[in-house]
Amino acid sequence: MSGRLVTLEGGEGAGKSTVLAAVRERLEHHGIDVVVTREPGGTPFGEAVRKLVLDPAHGGVCAESELLLMFAARAQLVRELIQPALASGRWVLSDRYTDASYAYQGGGRGQPLERIAELERWAAPVVPGLTLLLDLPVAQGLERVRARALPPLAQFDSTPALDRIESEPDAFFERVRAAYRARAAADPARFRIIDASRPVDDVRAAAVAEVDRYVAAVRVIA
Amino acid sequence: MSGRLVTLEGGEGAGKSTVLAAVRERLEHHGIDVVVTREPGGTPFGEAVRKLVLDPAHGGVCAESELLLMFAARAQLVRELIQPALASGRWVLSDRYTDASYAYQGGGRGQPLERIAELERWAAPVVPGLTLLLDLPVAQGLERVRARALPPLAQFDSTPALDRIESEPDAFFERVRAAYRARAAADPARFRIIDASRPVDDVRAAAVAEVDRYVAAVRVIA
Repeated sequence: MSGRLVTLEGGEGAGKSTVLAAVRERLEHHGIDVVVTREPGGTPFGEAVRKLVLDPAHGGVCAESELLLMFAARAQLVRELIQPALASGRWVLSDRYTDASYAYQGGGRGQPLERIAELERWAAPVVPGLTLLLDLPVAQGLERVRARALPPLAQFDSTPALDRIESEPDAFFERVRAAYRARAAADPARFRIIDASRPVDDVRAAAVAEVDRYVAAVRVIA
Repeated sequence: MSGRLVTLEGGEGAGKSTVLAAVRERLEHHGIDVVVTREPGGTPFGEAVRKLVLDPAHGGVCAESELLLMFAARAQLVRELIQPALASGRWVLSDRYTDASYAYQGGGRGQPLERIAELERWAAPVVPGLTLLLDLPVAQGLERVRARALPPLAQFDSTPALDRIESEPDAFFERVRAAYRARAAADPARFRIIDASRPVDDVRAAAVAEVDRYVAAVRVIA
């Protein structure tokens, strides 16, 4: 069976880390050799780009630069990690991928979607087989993120608790969510929307059920 | 008189720094308020990108990522420095600009020229009024760079003397030179090719003469 790319998408506080661990475990349970990665980042070069793009000190970075940086990290991830892994029959599970650019740089920052599609065509041409979109109301997600970022002793901690993108106003995240949902609606064969407003056990169970269905479908084809 | 963008292009060891200083001085001599910048870099964000893209540790960076990074730095430079300066009537003198991507990422790395033109269209839409191309045989230029990079006590210096791009093989720089010359041939109204194989005083004088002609022409129009 040849390798597949599975991506996990969703806004702030959707529970991606928990679901990522569950999806990885479930793929391995099916005997699949899986490589886990994340965006932006996933390679030494990409992690350096991640640091740069999320640094709150670069508050004035223009939307065009942000989009280009995201694709710079992604192009390297595709060539250094994703393509070699898929070619050797391994699966890749990525915490965010190109849909995140449509949501954040497109929906959030207003970059034209055709511009993103054009970059995707040559910089990141690997298309996921399955994308799980963890969807929940923006207010609920941000409440979780901000609770996490403000521990009881936060006033003694001088490191910024929220990164440059997490510090955006709520309207930004509403546009991100709408863009994610529009992407999912336009490609129902690849996307599965998971209601992430529910208790974490239910979200995890829903993700695992989707993984089971996808693996079964891939095995029928293979 | 509205602001103009003047760019200086050329391969390794062409004497850009010397010419840059002379051009700046000559523009000021004509009563022009000039902002000098460089690529990649020119803004705090761009300088961070410069460090990343030239770091010899990132030897495996793919051509697509390199191209995207260069335009990420450039998009920010255009919006943060070039456009505001031109709008306020100042001139901008840049040590490299988009032609460098056609030469290095296009000619050098083989990225398709249409791809670069498309990025230029939306990420760096400001077109220079005058571009001075310092042209000289590759062997001569590299000899100068390598002499500079290997001081007598180089063996006691642990920092890498050549950056990631300067460390490319000679054939790379032959492609860079050919691409630069092709750009200049295609747009003779904007480009002036300066023979940089001559003694530095002659090169400087040729550049200054071109600046004089350009300023005179702009003043006739204005």
